[in-house]
Amino acid sequence: MNHLRDNTSFVLCGDIAFSESKNKIVTYRKGYLVCVDGICKGAFNELPEEYRSLPLYDYGTRLIIPGMTDLHVHAPQYTFRGIGMDCELLDWLKNYAFQEEFKYYDMQYASKAYSFFTYDLKRCFSTRAVIFATLHTEATIELMTQLEKTGLITYVGKVNMDRNSDNLQEADASASLKATRQWLESIDGKFKNTKPILTPRFIPSCSNDLMRGIGQLSKETGLRIQSHLSENPSEVEWVKELVPESTCYANAYEIFDTMGTPDCPTIMAHCVYSDEREMKILKNHGAYIAHCADSNMNLISGIAPIKKFLDAGINIGLGTDVAAGSSMNMLKTILITHQASKMYYRLVDNNVKPLTFEEIFYLATAGGGRYFGKVGTFKPGYDFDAVIMDDSIMHTMRDISVRERIERMCYNDADDIINEKFVKGKKVYSSIKA
Amino acid sequence: MNHLRDNTSFVLCGDIAFSESKNKIVTYRKGYLVCVDGICKGAFNELPEEYRSLPLYDYGTRLIIPGMTDLHVHAPQYTFRGIGMDCELLDWLKNYAFQEEFKYYDMQYASKAYSFFTYDLKRCFSTRAVIFATLHTEATIELMTQLEKTGLITYVGKVNMDRNSDNLQEADASASLKATRQWLESIDGKFKNTKPILTPRFIPSCSNDLMRGIGQLSKETGLRIQSHLSENPSEVEWVKELVPESTCYANAYEIFDTMGTPDCPTIMAHCVYSDEREMKILKNHGAYIAHCADSNMNLISGIAPIKKFLDAGINIGLGTDVAAGSSMNMLKTILITHQASKMYYRLVDNNVKPLTFEEIFYLATAGGGRYFGKVGTFKPGYDFDAVIMDDSIMHTMRDISVRERIERMCYNDADDIINEKFVKGKKVYSSIKA
Repeated sequence: MNHLRDNTSFVLCGDIAFSESKNKIVTYRKGYLVCVDGICKGAFNELPEEYRSLPLYDYGTRLIIPGMTDLHVHAPQYTFRGIGMDCELLDWLKNYAFQEEFKYYDMQYASKAYSFFTYDLKRCFSTRAVIFATLHTEATIELMTQLEKTGLITYVGKVNMDRNSDNLQEADASASLKATRQWLESIDGKFKNTKPILTPRFIPSCSNDLMRGIGQLSKETGLRIQSHLSENPSEVEWVKELVPESTCYANAYEIFDTMGTPDCPTIMAHCVYSDEREMKILKNHGAYIAHCADSNMNLISGIAPIKKFLDAGINIGLGTDVAAGSSMNMLKTILITHQASKMYYRLVDNNVKPLTFEEIFYLATAGGGRYFGKVGTFKPGYDFDAVIMDDSIMHTMRDISVRERIERMCYNDADDIINEKFVKGKKVYSSIKA
Repeated sequence: MNHLRDNTSFVLCGDIAFSESKNKIVTYRKGYLVCVDGICKGAFNELPEEYRSLPLYDYGTRLIIPGMTDLHVHAPQYTFRGIGMDCELLDWLKNYAFQEEFKYYDMQYASKAYSFFTYDLKRCFSTRAVIFATLHTEATIELMTQLEKTGLITYVGKVNMDRNSDNLQEADASASLKATRQWLESIDGKFKNTKPILTPRFIPSCSNDLMRGIGQLSKETGLRIQSHLSENPSEVEWVKELVPESTCYANAYEIFDTMGTPDCPTIMAHCVYSDEREMKILKNHGAYIAHCADSNMNLISGIAPIKKFLDAGINIGLGTDVAAGSSMNMLKTILITHQASKMYYRLVDNNVKPLTFEEIFYLATAGGGRYFGKVGTFKPGYDFDAVIMDDSIMHTMRDISVRERIERMCYNDADDIINEKFVKGKKVYSSIKA
């Protein structure tokens, strides 16, 4: 029995839920979930004969769902989350984000602050995350070193920025690109689960030369890119001035060859103001939208028409966008995503129906998970990323279904219900006392 | 020293915050908060001589804030919170709320279900609440009995409904009014902290005769009234058909003499679609708006222009509106109220500025507290309602101010930070191990 060799082959028993498609959550009451060598072999009502020799862990009536993917989060902003929530984007960046990120030149500061971030990331619903660091090479390597120890699988970007950012910027494009290459050399071969991603902050922070350089570096290295797109009306206006030859914000990225390809997809956070033209660009390039509803409401940005993007077949995942989002709790992100989409329907365009709970659960798990490959659901062949939760503290009078418990869990969004987390079949966290 | 006689006279020391006005939160780092006979004597940087003989309890760097008021919550809906969140109001009432409330004819069921509600209400940020029960007299008395034991101060309404509500309705107006009188007689003199409030559900559920009867009963007994107003577009349309002689929904209540007076104010939940005409009616009657942003987004109702109401001098408090709101956690209500008000500004009317955090904190404490008298702040003469919280689990790298900690606490909205709760100087809850 080859698959008995290591501890990433086993069977979990419990109340299981996952997205079969964007419109369907399938559930198993006291079902069996099989993991062989870190890969999911499927969920079953009866355990198939061939897996009966595997060790079986019975979680009773606990819930077992796929690990979630946080497609957009700023690690250095974590320790000031929930502060400064009366500002719009550009003021907030200037008065809060940039001032905080500046401090990461100091390695003692960075190391301690990042330890708070990684500690809590390990204990939240996400098993995967795509992360902005700061422009500081050394601090970014420290973050990656800490993340590697968590067992989570992440992308981390040293940020590029060489203009319009007060004292938080590199001297010029060539200095920024040089630092990026040094960063990539320093980490080459060093991490298994923590991957680099090119991270030009956004057009206002990056000169044309820098943007072009990042585009070239991506082509040369095969590294992916993440950035921000069409978040706030003032920002969109500013980009029009900065790149007057562009037909739209997304086209500005296109001009600099940073919109990626389906094989090397770029993540664009927000897309609140992306119109049909931008949708076409996003789709043609196979880009991922990181939808950050919490952040978009907090910074008074607006609401992205995600239902429209989803129906158009654009890749989408959810991001907490800490610290413009106030928490890394993806259940809260789900709840707020639902509310935002309902308000888009009610207040902006009643031709765009609200996202269903099914669709949002899909985006939080399989939608964002796809960025990492076969991740985010329990279909056979997918990486075995799972979160086990005890929701028994939420008393009810009914025999509620597993599907209803999943919805209730998201709408109550408490993260202290998490018991255990698995990434690729490896248990990375447990709060259960032995 | 008269005020040493009982245990409702003492001094608390800690990091204190409360609303001085709707635009200002005042804070004290390691300040002193004085309670004499259950009444607040003020907050001080140095403890005045006259209070130095009182017992002093030092909470170190814990936060001390006024207890909050939940101005609108449905107790019987609590055990299905977070379920059915893809519906609009009228469907949700039919498919979820009414079906659940129907079960409260069964006292065994009611008693158990209400025990879950009261247990959690005692442990949340609210020290006061205005509550809908069901139409069942006996179950409503059971709820009041349980609430009285919590030490919280509440209003509870046996619901009136005699039409359009499937099997959840009373035979007719006179049966409903008779049951209401019986309920009032049964509880007469029975409770100290748990007061009755007349509760016609809303116009669609109450015949004209019933509405008029409630109006008369209020005049006769001096009892206050609570109901729902202008929540959802379909509901507003329906009321127009049901009371064709009314000029608006609020006027329909006026016609039946149920809009109250400044001395006997009615609470109207929602007011999402209240225009200038309704604002005038609300203001003239001294009515309170229970703003329920969480519920209004969940049921796709819309967003109430609270900033406009506030500037017009209308009385306003916040409501969780469980189970259309998914939680009794008022911090979550604050966070969502802020987001809702930002989206109203961004998406509906950019002449209506977003509520500030200061204003929302005020609404959650002093705004709703006013309904109960001098409640919801730590100014001298106010009832001593306080919540003590330990937010030290939220690590930060800065020496953040008390004001910033209050905002961060609301934006993180975890309720497990609550340590102790006082109502009128009486400690009603403590999670601190002796």
